[in-house]
Amino acid sequence: MAVAEVDVVVVGAGFAGLAASRDLVAAGRSVIVVEARDRVGGRVRNQAIGDGKVVEVGGQWVGPTQDKVLALAEDVGVETFPTYDAGRRVLHFGGRRGTYKGTIPRINPLVIADVGRAQARLESLAKKVPLEAPWTAARAEAWDAVTFETWLRRNTLTGAGRMLLALGVEAVFACEPGDVSLLHVLFYAHSAGSFQMAIDTGGGAQQDRFVGGSQLVCDKLADALGSDAVRLEAPVRRIRVLADRVTVESDNGAWTCRRVIVSLPPLLAGRIDYDPQLPPWRNQLTQRTPMGSVIKCNAIYDEPFWRSEGLSGQATGDGEGARVVFDNSPPDGTPGILLGFLEGDEARRLGRARPEERRKAVLDSFVRYFGPRAGHPVDFVELDWQAEQWSGGCYGTLFGPNVWTRYGSALREPVGPVHWAGTETATVWSGYMDGAVSSGQRAAAEVLAALG
Amino acid sequence: MAVAEVDVVVVGAGFAGLAASRDLVAAGRSVIVVEARDRVGGRVRNQAIGDGKVVEVGGQWVGPTQDKVLALAEDVGVETFPTYDAGRRVLHFGGRRGTYKGTIPRINPLVIADVGRAQARLESLAKKVPLEAPWTAARAEAWDAVTFETWLRRNTLTGAGRMLLALGVEAVFACEPGDVSLLHVLFYAHSAGSFQMAIDTGGGAQQDRFVGGSQLVCDKLADALGSDAVRLEAPVRRIRVLADRVTVESDNGAWTCRRVIVSLPPLLAGRIDYDPQLPPWRNQLTQRTPMGSVIKCNAIYDEPFWRSEGLSGQATGDGEGARVVFDNSPPDGTPGILLGFLEGDEARRLGRARPEERRKAVLDSFVRYFGPRAGHPVDFVELDWQAEQWSGGCYGTLFGPNVWTRYGSALREPVGPVHWAGTETATVWSGYMDGAVSSGQRAAAEVLAALG
Repeated sequence: MAVAEVDVVVVGAGFAGLAASRDLVAAGRSVIVVEARDRVGGRVRNQAIGDGKVVEVGGQWVGPTQDKVLALAEDVGVETFPTYDAGRRVLHFGGRRGTYKGTIPRINPLVIADVGRAQARLESLAKKVPLEAPWTAARAEAWDAVTFETWLRRNTLTGAGRMLLALGVEAVFACEPGDVSLLHVLFYAHSAGSFQMAIDTGGGAQQDRFVGGSQLVCDKLADALGSDAVRLEAPVRRIRVLADRVTVESDNGAWTCRRVIVSLPPLLAGRIDYDPQLPPWRNQLTQRTPMGSVIKCNAIYDEPFWRSEGLSGQATGDGEGARVVFDNSPPDGTPGILLGFLEGDEARRLGRARPEERRKAVLDSFVRYFGPRAGHPVDFVELDWQAEQWSGGCYGTLFGPNVWTRYGSALREPVGPVHWAGTETATVWSGYMDGAVSSGQRAAAEVLAALG
Repeated sequence: MAVAEVDVVVVGAGFAGLAASRDLVAAGRSVIVVEARDRVGGRVRNQAIGDGKVVEVGGQWVGPTQDKVLALAEDVGVETFPTYDAGRRVLHFGGRRGTYKGTIPRINPLVIADVGRAQARLESLAKKVPLEAPWTAARAEAWDAVTFETWLRRNTLTGAGRMLLALGVEAVFACEPGDVSLLHVLFYAHSAGSFQMAIDTGGGAQQDRFVGGSQLVCDKLADALGSDAVRLEAPVRRIRVLADRVTVESDNGAWTCRRVIVSLPPLLAGRIDYDPQLPPWRNQLTQRTPMGSVIKCNAIYDEPFWRSEGLSGQATGDGEGARVVFDNSPPDGTPGILLGFLEGDEARRLGRARPEERRKAVLDSFVRYFGPRAGHPVDFVELDWQAEQWSGGCYGTLFGPNVWTRYGSALREPVGPVHWAGTETATVWSGYMDGAVSSGQRAAAEVLAALG
């Protein structure tokens, strides 16, 4: 097997790996990006729907304070446009449908107050979690020893309030409140600015979208690196550290280099064979970093019929099928696209169903929110991220109890010439495209400093 | 690459894989056992200490109701002897040392009552967990959404009582009470008969030992299969399913077969590449099954000096170093061996220390329990299971919140011609050698039924 030599091998061609490579190349280093899939983008993916248009079946939104990814997109000439947010939102709760304007639904004021009080408490605790080292928070041990479910039960008075906050957790993490520790939710909220920032459309993480789809940014980053610099369909199987050289072996080539950046979720980084093996605490970390559970479903209609009915296309519900829905139409509003998320338990349940059953469950929920026209799309485009071998799940990594406090320090710490990137290693907007970009840039800076 | 053909490939030569192979061979099937390590035994390992004697640095004890492993050992001619259990036990708690006879230490009766009441509640809940399907317990969802730490805090009145029960968890699971869900602790206790069975010496899981060390049973099982049937130093990297044939590829050979039994912890099974990939729920299960954290330390003395002082060699404490200690001397009492466990956080902390610091921490704790002679062993033999690449940790798999209820059904369910064994898949004595044996026998029966 011929082994080419470069300064740096970057494993993974998502936002993190591509951002790292860009900085390394700009600094005059030779780089190859090695990617398991037949495309770049990682957890971000455009799918063509005809007429030169795309629908995003992976990560897609950007918002204020996500300066790193926005700057990078601007650099490569990809513009943003606002998520459709005009008109009333739909809430289908307890078997009843209502619509409302703004962010606070018209439901029982006691429930509103209950959610408001619990969320205010959550936001205030979140501020106390140091982003560089969540495990050093004064109450880190106590916050990490309980699930978020436990905290929710202690800090809400109404079942409906608990349900609404649980829906927020499902939407942000693609899991149930019992899947993650309180400390993880607090870290994540602080990392995003606040929990409210994470769940908001206008002013929050869902405010804007990329013209041409989010994967276009990755495609352009890869183009700028040049086709020789990106090797696709090359799952990395082994990383061998030999004195001052590292060999990276994939199913589609091997490379020798001085430094490696592994820009994968910790789970997938843990499935590579390292020789010599990694320190035990790094190994045990990667045993404790499962991915979330989500199926992203887009129903495509001739037009966004809900808009003319004064609806934003945004809906929330507590029933089966999609509990969180957005208008995901292209910038010109043609075709009309409703995006529904199956998250946490719904993704697990419907991930085992036949495609037609899943489609029916999603469309049934759309009909509850938007009426009978929603039941008859011209197309239905879904992606079950649980079935994506090279992600293992989405949106990101779930930190269950006692993981941050026992293993958090191993998340970013390089192991010899092996550096770690990926949105999970970010401090700001961890779990988002923006965190991926900053993690790649941070890893590139580490490598450049080490190469001297 | 020459590819040999057999009826069944068994991945992993621990108790589970060897027991499965034995049954398959007895039924006339051709089998090869493929093992990553340079020895058989998996999480069970003898280490020679001279004079033809061994000390066990892995799993070692057996007890009443562990009929499967006891029968197998008898079959291959390995005898048992009782764990040394005569004399008084030591408790070092809150800075004070005391000794006691029997199982109940002489401490504040309020603490005894507190522990007794909580444990009685635990035992009673445990009985309600169906061993074949823990996720079907009436209260499974609620029990799985909280950590055992949360339950402990709600069900104890004294800090000392909580501490003693936490010590029990550390001893049984090699983790902290926040690492696992309440449902997992209840399942595990029921699987062992009771929590008391799991922690007891006489009458419990630590009652007896194997003459010649537990690995001897595995060595003899492997010998009986024949050296051609066991391939060592052959980590399996890929399992390809092609119509009615399966190819198993390792670093040291490849085989084609009709059925595969993967007798690894789910974590390690998840690090093999499957083609086609496994169902998403199986993949996500293996993301959520980390291994425990333990370092097993044996200090070797000319003689078991504690015996003549009327001590059993068993000790428990709440300080640094070993919190659970046993007399681990060979059957004839020469040399004298004290076995100390570093478990959970102590294993994580001291796993990062230099060997001499770790040795000092362990011996300091032995001195607190048994006086100054304990500080001067003639030898010190330790094994950090966190650093064992082909285990990932010990004793077994930790099920955190929402894993049993969301993914438990994927634990044993075969995927086409791929069957799952390993102690984690057992219903009785799951996590123990006995569970490993029964799991292998169950998987062999599945395969034999499928082969017709």
